Amino acid sequence: MVPYLSDSYGNPSAIHQEGMIARRGVELAREQLARAVQVRPEYVTFTAGGTEANNLAILGVVKKMEAVGRPYSEMEVITTRIEHPSVLSTVEELSRLGVVIKFVSVDETGKVILSELRKSLSEKTVLVTIAYANSEIGTVQPLHSIKKAIKETEQKFSTTVYLHVDAAQAPLWLQCQFDAVGADFMTLDTAKCCGPKGVGILIRSHRAEITAVTFGGGQESGLRPGTENVAGIVGAGVAIEWAQAGWRERAELVCAVRDQAIEYIQTKIPAATLNGATGEGRIANNINISVPGLDTEFTSVILDKEGFAVSTKSACSGAGGGESVVVKEITNDPARATSTLRITLGPDTKTEDLEILTEVLKKHIDKMSEIL
Amino acid sequence: MVPYLSDSYGNPSAIHQEGMIARRGVELAREQLARAVQVRPEYVTFTAGGTEANNLAILGVVKKMEAVGRPYSEMEVITTRIEHPSVLSTVEELSRLGVVIKFVSVDETGKVILSELRKSLSEKTVLVTIAYANSEIGTVQPLHSIKKAIKETEQKFSTTVYLHVDAAQAPLWLQCQFDAVGADFMTLDTAKCCGPKGVGILIRSHRAEITAVTFGGGQESGLRPGTENVAGIVGAGVAIEWAQAGWRERAELVCAVRDQAIEYIQTKIPAATLNGATGEGRIANNINISVPGLDTEFTSVILDKEGFAVSTKSACSGAGGGESVVVKEITNDPARATSTLRITLGPDTKTEDLEILTEVLKKHIDKMSEIL
Repeated sequence: MVPYLSDSYGNPSAIHQEGMIARRGVELAREQLARAVQVRPEYVTFTAGGTEANNLAILGVVKKMEAVGRPYSEMEVITTRIEHPSVLSTVEELSRLGVVIKFVSVDETGKVILSELRKSLSEKTVLVTIAYANSEIGTVQPLHSIKKAIKETEQKFSTTVYLHVDAAQAPLWLQCQFDAVGADFMTLDTAKCCGPKGVGILIRSHRAEITAVTFGGGQESGLRPGTENVAGIVGAGVAIEWAQAGWRERAELVCAVRDQAIEYIQTKIPAATLNGATGEGRIANNINISVPGLDTEFTSVILDKEGFAVSTKSACSGAGGGESVVVKEITNDPARATSTLRITLGPDTKTEDLEILTEVLKKHIDKMSEIL
Repeated sequence: MVPYLSDSYGNPSAIHQEGMIARRGVELAREQLARAVQVRPEYVTFTAGGTEANNLAILGVVKKMEAVGRPYSEMEVITTRIEHPSVLSTVEELSRLGVVIKFVSVDETGKVILSELRKSLSEKTVLVTIAYANSEIGTVQPLHSIKKAIKETEQKFSTTVYLHVDAAQAPLWLQCQFDAVGADFMTLDTAKCCGPKGVGILIRSHRAEITAVTFGGGQESGLRPGTENVAGIVGAGVAIEWAQAGWRERAELVCAVRDQAIEYIQTKIPAATLNGATGEGRIANNINISVPGLDTEFTSVILDKEGFAVSTKSACSGAGGGESVVVKEITNDPARATSTLRITLGPDTKTEDLEILTEVLKKHIDKMSEIL
C-alpha cells in the first residue's frame, strides 16, 4: 500500500500517467479480488467498508426496483434479528420507506430455522439478507439450504428473490468462492482479514441489478461515487487473496485450538456457557461464552491488563454496558445476554495462550465471587 | 499513517488497549482538525471522502428536517449549475424526494449573481449549497455576501437557512477557519491537500442538526457508521493542519506564478481564453483555458508524454469526451466548453515549468493547425 500513499498518488479517473498508474493499482486489485472469489472483475465494487457494502446491497437493490416501477409497499425483505447493526439499521430504513421486513427466527445456536424461512418467503419477497457467520457468536448459516428455499420460491411464483450474504467475518476461515456461497450479493471487509480499515467490497451476480445509494461522480461503474481509496484498495486485493488462498488449512488448525480451549474453559469454569454452535456450525476463530452474574466489561479490562484483547458484544453496537442483542435473541436469557465474553482467535493463536487466558479469567471470577 | 497500518491495528470502538490506541489516533486527529479550522472537536465528522461529506451534509440536513415533521415539498434548496457532481447528483436525489431545487445563475467568471440569490431565497429555503472555489475553473465565491443575504432572509422570515460550503479545493490556498467561512457545514477532502485518498471531513456549526444517511453502528456520534479508517484519519489530521498553517504565504507565492503563466500563455497562444475569474477571485492553483477547435483530451496525452499531468474537466465527471458543464454554463459557448484544459499548480510549481508547458502546448497547436 505504501507506494500508493507516497509516490503513486494520482487520481485514477485522470488520464495522465499518474492517473493511469493509480488506475492500474485499483484494477489489478479488482482482478485479484475477482480471482479470489471467482467472479468477473466487473462484479467487484469497492466501498469504504463492510457497513457501506451492506448499505449498497440492501438499499441499492430495493431502490433499483422502486425506480423501475415497483412500489416499496409491494416488497418484502427477509432477515433475522441477530444480524450486524449495519444490516439491522439498513432494513429499518427500508421499513421507513414502506418495505415490509420479516424477521425469521433462529434456533438456540443462532441458526436460521428453515421451516420458518420457507413460510416467510412469499410472492412479494425481493431480498433475503443474512450473515455467512454471525459477528458475535460465529454461527455459520446453512446457505445452501437457504438458497434452495429461495429457488423454490422463485420457481413457485416466477419471481426473482435476491440473496445477500454478509461475509465480512468469512474470508480467513470459510469458502468464499462466489458460486459456492450461492449469493447474488456478498459483502467483504478487509479489516476482518488482516487488511486495511476503511475498505469494503460488494460482489454481485450477473443478474443482480442495483443503483448507487450515495450520489456523485461515475466511479465504480456508477455504483459508488468518490475518488477511489487507491492504497486501501490495493491492500484489499492482497488481504482477500491471502485470506482465501489458505482458508481451509487455517480453519482446520484454528478449529482444533478453539475446541480445546472451549473444553478447557468449561472444565475450569463450570459457570461458563458457550453461546452459539459447535463444530463446523461455528466459524473457526470465535469463542463466545456467558458467565451469568459476571460484569464482563470490567472482566475485559482485567484480561486486557494481562495482555488479552477480548470483547463483549459487537464493537459496532457501541462500547459501554447493555446486553448482547444476539445472545438475548438465541437464549431469551437476560443474565446470559448481559454477561457475554467474545474471544477471537487469530491464525497464530496457540492452545497455551488460551489456557493462560482461562486461568486469568478463572482467578478473576473466583475473586469476584469472594467479594460479592 | 504507517504505524496504524501495521502495529496499531485495533478497532477504535473496542475497549482493550489495542482499541484505545486506535481511538487515541482518531481523536488526536479530530482535535488537530478542529484546531486547524477552529471548531470544537465534536463538530468534526470523518467520512470516506468529500463526496460522502457532501452527501451527509445535504441529505442529512434535509432528512433530519423531514424526520421532525417538515414535508420534503415544503423545502427549497439553492445551489448553482456549476457545482461538483457530488453536489449536483445529491440535489437531484433531493428533487426526486420532492424538494424544490433552485439554481442561481453565475456570471461569466462563475461567480454567483447575488441579486439572483436574494430573489431565490424564500420562506421555504432550508439550505444553500455552494463550493468555496469551483473545482474546474477555480472561481472563489463571495461567501460573506452570500451569508449576508442568507441572514437577511432568516431575519425576514424568522427561519433557519443553512449554508453548506464545499471547501474541498480550499485548505492549501484559502482561509478555512470555520467562523470566517461563515458556513453551517463545510466539506473537506484530504486528497486535495497532499493527504490520503478516501478521507473526507464534514465540519458543522453548533446549530446544525443532521441525521446519518448510511445505516449501521453508532460511530462518529451516530452520524457516520462503520469502523473508522484510522490510518487515513490520522493522515487527514496532519494534511489539513499543514495545509492551513501556511495557506496565505503559499497562496501568495503560487498566485504570482499562476498570473505570470496566464500572461505567458495568452501572449504565446492568442487563441487561448481564460475561463473563470482573475486575481483574488480565483484560487491560487488553478489555470483553466479553452482553445476552441482543439482536441484537449488528445492534447493532455501529448502534454503527459512531456511530463505534464493536466486535465480537461473534473475527474469526477468521468474520463472520455464531452463538454465541461461548468464552462458551458459560464460562457454558453460549446466551442469553449469542449476545448478546456485545466492546469493545476502545486506548492512547488515554478514559472519555468509553466513556460515549458506553454511551449509544448504551442508547438502542438501549431502542428494540429498545419494538419487540419
